[in-house]
Amino acid sequence: MSGSVYGNLFKVSTWGESHGRGIGVVVDGCPAGLPLCEEDIQIFLDRRKPGQSKYTTPRKEDDAVEILSGVFEGKTTGTPISLVVYNKSQRSGDYSEIASYYRPGHADLTYDIKYGFRDYRGGGRSSGRETIGRVAAGAIASKILAEIGVSICTYTKSIGPIEADMDKFDESAISQNPLYMPDSDAAEKAGVFLETCMKEHDSSGGIIECIIRNMPAGIGDPAFDKLDACLAKALMSIGAVKAVEIGDGMEAARHRGSVNNDPYSYAADGSILKTANRSGGILGGISDGSDIVLRAAFKPTPSIAKLQPTVNKDGENIEVSIKGRHDPIIVPRAVVVVESMAAITLLDLLFSGMTSRLDSVVRFFSK
Amino acid sequence: MSGSVYGNLFKVSTWGESHGRGIGVVVDGCPAGLPLCEEDIQIFLDRRKPGQSKYTTPRKEDDAVEILSGVFEGKTTGTPISLVVYNKSQRSGDYSEIASYYRPGHADLTYDIKYGFRDYRGGGRSSGRETIGRVAAGAIASKILAEIGVSICTYTKSIGPIEADMDKFDESAISQNPLYMPDSDAAEKAGVFLETCMKEHDSSGGIIECIIRNMPAGIGDPAFDKLDACLAKALMSIGAVKAVEIGDGMEAARHRGSVNNDPYSYAADGSILKTANRSGGILGGISDGSDIVLRAAFKPTPSIAKLQPTVNKDGENIEVSIKGRHDPIIVPRAVVVVESMAAITLLDLLFSGMTSRLDSVVRFFSK
Amino acid sequence: MSGSVYGNLFKVSTWGESHGRGIGVVVDGCPAGLPLCEEDIQIFLDRRKPGQSKYTTPRKEDDAVEILSGVFEGKTTGTPISLVVYNKSQRSGDYSEIASYYRPGHADLTYDIKYGFRDYRGGGRSSGRETIGRVAAGAIASKILAEIGVSICTYTKSIGPIEADMDKFDESAISQNPLYMPDSDAAEKAGVFLETCMKEHDSSGGIIECIIRNMPAGIGDPAFDKLDACLAKALMSIGAVKAVEIGDGMEAARHRGSVNNDPYSYAADGSILKTANRSGGILGGISDGSDIVLRAAFKPTPSIAKLQPTVNKDGENIEVSIKGRHDPIIVPRAVVVVESMAAITLLDLLFSGMTSRLDSVVRFFSK
Amino acid sequence: MSGSVYGNLFKVSTWGESHGRGIGVVVDGCPAGLPLCEEDIQIFLDRRKPGQSKYTTPRKEDDAVEILSGVFEGKTTGTPISLVVYNKSQRSGDYSEIASYYRPGHADLTYDIKYGFRDYRGGGRSSGRETIGRVAAGAIASKILAEIGVSICTYTKSIGPIEADMDKFDESAISQNPLYMPDSDAAEKAGVFLETCMKEHDSSGGIIECIIRNMPAGIGDPAFDKLDACLAKALMSIGAVKAVEIGDGMEAARHRGSVNNDPYSYAADGSILKTANRSGGILGGISDGSDIVLRAAFKPTPSIAKLQPTVNKDGENIEVSIKGRHDPIIVPRAVVVVESMAAITLLDLLFSGMTSRLDSVVRFFSK
Repeated sequence: MSGSVYGNLFKVSTWGESHGRGIGVVVDGCPAGLPLCEEDIQIFLDRRKPGQSKYTTPRKEDDAVEILSGVFEGKTTGTPISLVVYNKSQRSGDYSEIASYYRPGHADLTYDIKYGFRDYRGGGRSSGRETIGRVAAGAIASKILAEIGVSICTYTKSIGPIEADMDKFDESAISQNPLYMPDSDAAEKAGVFLETCMKEHDSSGGIIECIIRNMPAGIGDPAFDKLDACLAKALMSIGAVKAVEIGDGMEAARHRGSVNNDPYSYAADGSILKTANRSGGILGGISDGSDIVLRAAFKPTPSIAKLQPTVNKDGENIEVSIKGRHDPIIVPRAVVVVESMAAITLLDLLFSGMTSRLDSVVRFFSK
Repeated sequence: MSGSVYGNLFKVSTWGESHGRGIGVVVDGCPAGLPLCEEDIQIFLDRRKPGQSKYTTPRKEDDAVEILSGVFEGKTTGTPISLVVYNKSQRSGDYSEIASYYRPGHADLTYDIKYGFRDYRGGGRSSGRETIGRVAAGAIASKILAEIGVSICTYTKSIGPIEADMDKFDESAISQNPLYMPDSDAAEKAGVFLETCMKEHDSSGGIIECIIRNMPAGIGDPAFDKLDACLAKALMSIGAVKAVEIGDGMEAARHRGSVNNDPYSYAADGSILKTANRSGGILGGISDGSDIVLRAAFKPTPSIAKLQPTVNKDGENIEVSIKGRHDPIIVPRAVVVVESMAAITLLDLLFSGMTSRLDSVVRFFSK
Repeated sequence: MSGSVYGNLFKVSTWGESHGRGIGVVVDGCPAGLPLCEEDIQIFLDRRKPGQSKYTTPRKEDDAVEILSGVFEGKTTGTPISLVVYNKSQRSGDYSEIASYYRPGHADLTYDIKYGFRDYRGGGRSSGRETIGRVAAGAIASKILAEIGVSICTYTKSIGPIEADMDKFDESAISQNPLYMPDSDAAEKAGVFLETCMKEHDSSGGIIECIIRNMPAGIGDPAFDKLDACLAKALMSIGAVKAVEIGDGMEAARHRGSVNNDPYSYAADGSILKTANRSGGILGGISDGSDIVLRAAFKPTPSIAKLQPTVNKDGENIEVSIKGRHDPIIVPRAVVVVESMAAITLLDLLFSGMTSRLDSVVRFFSK
Repeated sequence: MSGSVYGNLFKVSTWGESHGRGIGVVVDGCPAGLPLCEEDIQIFLDRRKPGQSKYTTPRKEDDAVEILSGVFEGKTTGTPISLVVYNKSQRSGDYSEIASYYRPGHADLTYDIKYGFRDYRGGGRSSGRETIGRVAAGAIASKILAEIGVSICTYTKSIGPIEADMDKFDESAISQNPLYMPDSDAAEKAGVFLETCMKEHDSSGGIIECIIRNMPAGIGDPAFDKLDACLAKALMSIGAVKAVEIGDGMEAARHRGSVNNDPYSYAADGSILKTANRSGGILGGISDGSDIVLRAAFKPTPSIAKLQPTVNKDGENIEVSIKGRHDPIIVPRAVVVVESMAAITLLDLLFSGMTSRLDSVVRFFSK
């Protein structure tokens, strides 16, 4: 029944509930010799914190990470790295009423059915705080990817009906607006839209897009551990994700083959280029050397103050308004979560890709 | 580098290339006592064969399956079940030219990069014939699911721009038209559309939808082996899939929370119903007892006779028209592949779900 | 390269080095509803502490365990259980010299080669303190096994040349002597022997034996996850173990078939008994319902004050006397480690055994 | 419940029963570019065939292997390699009586309990013929190991009370006597001993030893996937194995630390040598560069013509003499099985060892 261990050669075991004593992760399989300190991880964690804009609730969660093992004299030892963030600002009082009913759109009912009971405080393990472990591990994976030259650019592509204009794609804008959109005009419009949602005690969904650059070609293990298949699982496992797309995604279903195929041509230096990238950088489940483009669609935050019909545990149909400290949208906070899951997955498949060819393996063990 | 073993308690190891001696699968973890014969599996395999309508190429592939182990006196023994389909009608001659260039939209280039060379005949392991193993295993999984009461209804939801009208959803129509659409009018229009594609030496993509009924609630193992995450990987691993959706999918990103949440209410018999199902039957990564709805978007068949720019292995930019026996659309043949991957995944998670609660485990082992 | 995650449905991820900030484990897959508190785990951990007799060194290690997640209102939630023991009494000063040379019999050299460098303080991850995580997880597994009726009796069978007399096997004696031997006379003799070792600045090895009672028959998954194979890996993974035996073990190689086979006969109540148990309760890799008997041989503690030849990192052959706080024998402290690894393994295979028969699976999912 | 898939990066899925249609294996994760043909594998399989000496029964089993996938133009493609041996000379008639009772020392009863029924012909999946798949996979693994320079020397160390004299160890003798002993005098004495067994309608056990040379140092993944732990599981999973030893094995339990520790010293060329090898080449679960020495103890063949007490399925205590074609000893035929399981395990850990150090990983992916 275990489901909290992810990966093969780079294994990530997350643990922790929103109102338990802490949340953390054990990273097993990080190669020895990587310089690593708490700050490397804190930078990533800070990107998921609430209270960073008026569009997220003013909860204060310091979420300071501590490294408990696996690092010696500033470098990873190759042994498991245990990271923990102690829960400090979680208030049980806010959630006491929730124990009596099932919140629509949350996992209250499914957890109750699966386990027989649930930790009703703030969602327990199904809480968004569970992503702390993923992001901490993602920080480490990203650091290793950087050593190999791989980079990931992640951003909010749309919020509700407001989409970033990809013709005006501005990477520097991402970190300059609290919604992490690569188009400041769209960010402004989205801000207005969110204020409307908040006034109406409602919430919104959105789409996060991710561009992976300089991924070595040849990575992905057919037939089941294809790069796109693994990325799909990684992103879909993030709470609130309801769809994953690679390249043209759903749109590809409407295309003709003559349009959808990415043509090849030789560049001046003899390397093979693609003159389009509708495939999103993956063919046959294997990276082809061009940018890998993927997308995750997030449903709106389920917790809203607007009245909703539901049931309580006494057999009654009721209506609830979910009080408390909730975001009208989680997408900006989830950008680093998508990036982290992508990083962990890419690294794991890079590792297993090292054994694809006999000549590479023999060369590795010679001298 | 292994990537051809799928699953945990119900393990599926597929093997075989389009022009090798055969294609097959080993199913490990099938419980003992299931009645099983070749015909049970042949029924599933026959649904993926080409040459079943004018919209697929007239290749004859008998694909008769043989059971080599794991069945005794008509029932599974609990030991591995080895299934094989010998390749009979694969003609090497058709593909000899392909060795000299990379076909756009295929895995030719990525396989060459990953492995250093490739079996260029018909796509080798990246060929659609690789799905024979998946479907054979899916037939077995489906039989077990049926014993538990779970059923899967899979169909073509759209072909190119032609969509089935879900208000006129007619399950009986699925098996009555060669495109497996649940709307005979749409099937007719889609047929006309495909004939246009064929005339233009082009191909089309499409979307397959899948409804899973009577899945026990409480199945799925957070945080990484969530039911939706595992299904996403299962479907995305099928060749040509570029997106996977659960419930409202990409659309959920445009919703408000008040619209997207599925409200609960009590039925007369005291059970908890949902009055909508935008979540697609999964919340928090766990089945909630309502229908599970998912979708896979297929890109168009890459092999088209229309001229396409590409490169050959001698450093030249060329144009090719891919001759040979190719389908203008693979979606109808892929319906049973989607169903099979879903079946295998559901079964594996049902198995691991048996250990979620201590009381169930203790009861299992008491006399 | 990950190697610190053990198990399948009951997954155990250990972490921590002797001189890091703590040592712990994440248990993933513990069914929901098990009553659990720190005391349940502390009882197990206390059995591995040093300083409990004159035959172990007087290091004080309080090793108080803390539960950081996975338990709510006194019962497991079914989510990952994170356990930690903070290192308090580890003194770096004692080990500074060790950085300059390789201790014979330790993993200093192999860790240096594998990782490029090592945490030289007290053995780092190769330290016996790493077993804290295993034992904590074993406490949880044992509690679940108890609910199923399975019990494990573990003890020191021999120390150096002194063997417990199995004809005088006295289970109550185990907890009454500091060497955990089931024969108080042997325990006395072994004590005298150990005092000789200590005077000579030397150490001794020993054998631990383990009897598992009431294990349901039919558990173990051929061909590779056989019960004995999994137990062998579990025990051999414990530091200092150099051999694992099932039933008659090495002795079976000297037998005739007529002697070695365990005959069957019917008991009065119609159940099938074995009139001997040379097989140790496992046939064909599957439990047969009788007592499972296994043994692990521990080499002597490598750290001794006696002068030993070795090399330092400056290219010189030297002689060292390893000062510091070391046990002349680790076997008594390892008894609970063997028991824990056995418990974890038995539980994991009991879980996977739930899917062996279709009728059981169908019954499980019916109302 | 699956248990027939072994390994991680080099995955081996075996299938087949003694009286099914065939026996085989799918090897997933073999790097591309390895020259491979049926003969490479047949050489290994021929070493396990019966009827090769008067000490094994005169069954004729041609066991010709066929490669069904994964090889193109004489080299592995990196895709799964499916190997099959069709059962030709298995006679059902010989075993019809066995259906009615449980043979002592066999897995008849445990399989019946686990699965609810069994394929009673010749042991079904528990038959020694199951090792065909292991050996076929071992042939491939050995070929890759040879490319890396690793070699495995395996032989019969003892048969019943007759032991090979290691002071007269003669590697060339191994292939020159039908018992595969590295001491021709011992082989002669063992032959006499076996003839006695045969006259008495009895059987004997024995010990197989294995020396692995030139294994790179630093291989093995603590804490659970240690090299010795994985080898222990690999060997213990072979039918009839009751104990596994590394280095001094059980004997280490009787040693003092001053005797058991392997001292280090520098060789003239600056490399670190051990002047003894009681550890068997593994320290802290990691290879240290010296010869790896391990041992498996095999119990005697359970099927003997001598009368044995047992029970039948009608509730009666009976006596049986197991007729048919059985070996008085299986050890000589198991030598290649031990070698194969060792090869597969070593290769899998060599693969995962490639990610131990960041500098190696970075170097691997740089142009």
